[in-house]
Amino acid sequence: MKTSKKPAIAPECDRTIDIYTKAAEIFHEQGFDATSMSNIAAAVDLTKAGLYYYIESKEDLLFAIMNYAMERLETMVIEPSREIADPEARLRSIIERHGRLLTEGNKAITILTDEIEGLKPKHRRQILDRKRVYFDFVRGTLDELGTKNELREVNTTVATFAIFGMLLWLPRWFKPAGRLTSEDIIAELGKIATGGLLNGSHEAARA
Amino acid sequence: MKTSKKPAIAPECDRTIDIYTKAAEIFHEQGFDATSMSNIAAAVDLTKAGLYYYIESKEDLLFAIMNYAMERLETMVIEPSREIADPEARLRSIIERHGRLLTEGNKAITILTDEIEGLKPKHRRQILDRKRVYFDFVRGTLDELGTKNELREVNTTVATFAIFGMLLWLPRWFKPAGRLTSEDIIAELGKIATGGLLNGSHEAARA
Repeated sequence: MKTSKKPAIAPECDRTIDIYTKAAEIFHEQGFDATSMSNIAAAVDLTKAGLYYYIESKEDLLFAIMNYAMERLETMVIEPSREIADPEARLRSIIERHGRLLTEGNKAITILTDEIEGLKPKHRRQILDRKRVYFDFVRGTLDELGTKNELREVNTTVATFAIFGMLLWLPRWFKPAGRLTSEDIIAELGKIATGGLLNGSHEAARA
Repeated sequence: MKTSKKPAIAPECDRTIDIYTKAAEIFHEQGFDATSMSNIAAAVDLTKAGLYYYIESKEDLLFAIMNYAMERLETMVIEPSREIADPEARLRSIIERHGRLLTEGNKAITILTDEIEGLKPKHRRQILDRKRVYFDFVRGTLDELGTKNELREVNTTVATFAIFGMLLWLPRWFKPAGRLTSEDIIAELGKIATGGLLNGSHEAARA
């Protein structure tokens, strides 16, 4: 929200999060281009002028939602995982925490995070830079496992994207009312990811 | 295209595939709702009337593109893999063939396959039914591995979605001009997926 000349409300404010959530749902259903500020104002019970008090433009709103999503990722996944010295435990922490964020957080906001085409180039760069930090953090964790001879012979760039694919596909199929709880699913994904990446000798040593 | 009253050209015709490809790219860039038939006509060098000769409506076009994508999946991935009796070899075939389709095929068409919100309920159901057949085929393969005691203790529903996530994320990050070739990446994903799913005793027996 740094680019906005108008007062931005802090993301911890419920009203802002409510606006972000509803707007993300409308963007997701109708598409970013097809959504007007009037559509969003109506959904959040504000006049168009009232909405413009908070948000300067539709693009600013999209950027604010993405920054909010990145902040959640940083606070709830990256920062606590960074404190874990052992790379295997760190990898498990990343998968569990990110899995929880993806199943318990807002689905529309999560999916919207990939729709960076709607952003101005400058804003797009900022979001991509933040995503890059996360990518490097995960790949660095795998590289550390490699140095300790705990990793299978896999390319860590492909492996990082494989982990992201498994995780980021989750909001597209997970049903909160389904037979499998989010905890069950996250535990399974943790087993599959670590099984696919950690080498057998390490597992044998553990057994 | 069964619902169209106008003559539909066969998907093997280059002109149709050209229209599908360009339309998918425009839908992907602008969003389905924000794209008009005029936008598509202009992109494929047809008058609007000319485009309407082939396609009855924008929704029909979206449905036709998705059917085309499902046909490619069925012909290039499912049918040849179904002929493989051994479930481990079949799983490897699915990952390799689908990986190749995702990296060598048209990116916009692949990504569009998830945008089923644009379809009429009847068409949506048809596409979802075809996707379901694929899902059941992959999960059935994992269940067979389980029966042969070759699978880790993993839930095969979650494991199937994990494989889909790894694969379907691919067109979002794969760069044809990048350092890793599609063959390299597909081989790595094969290692990660089978490593994460096949159990250690099986691997030990193989070594």
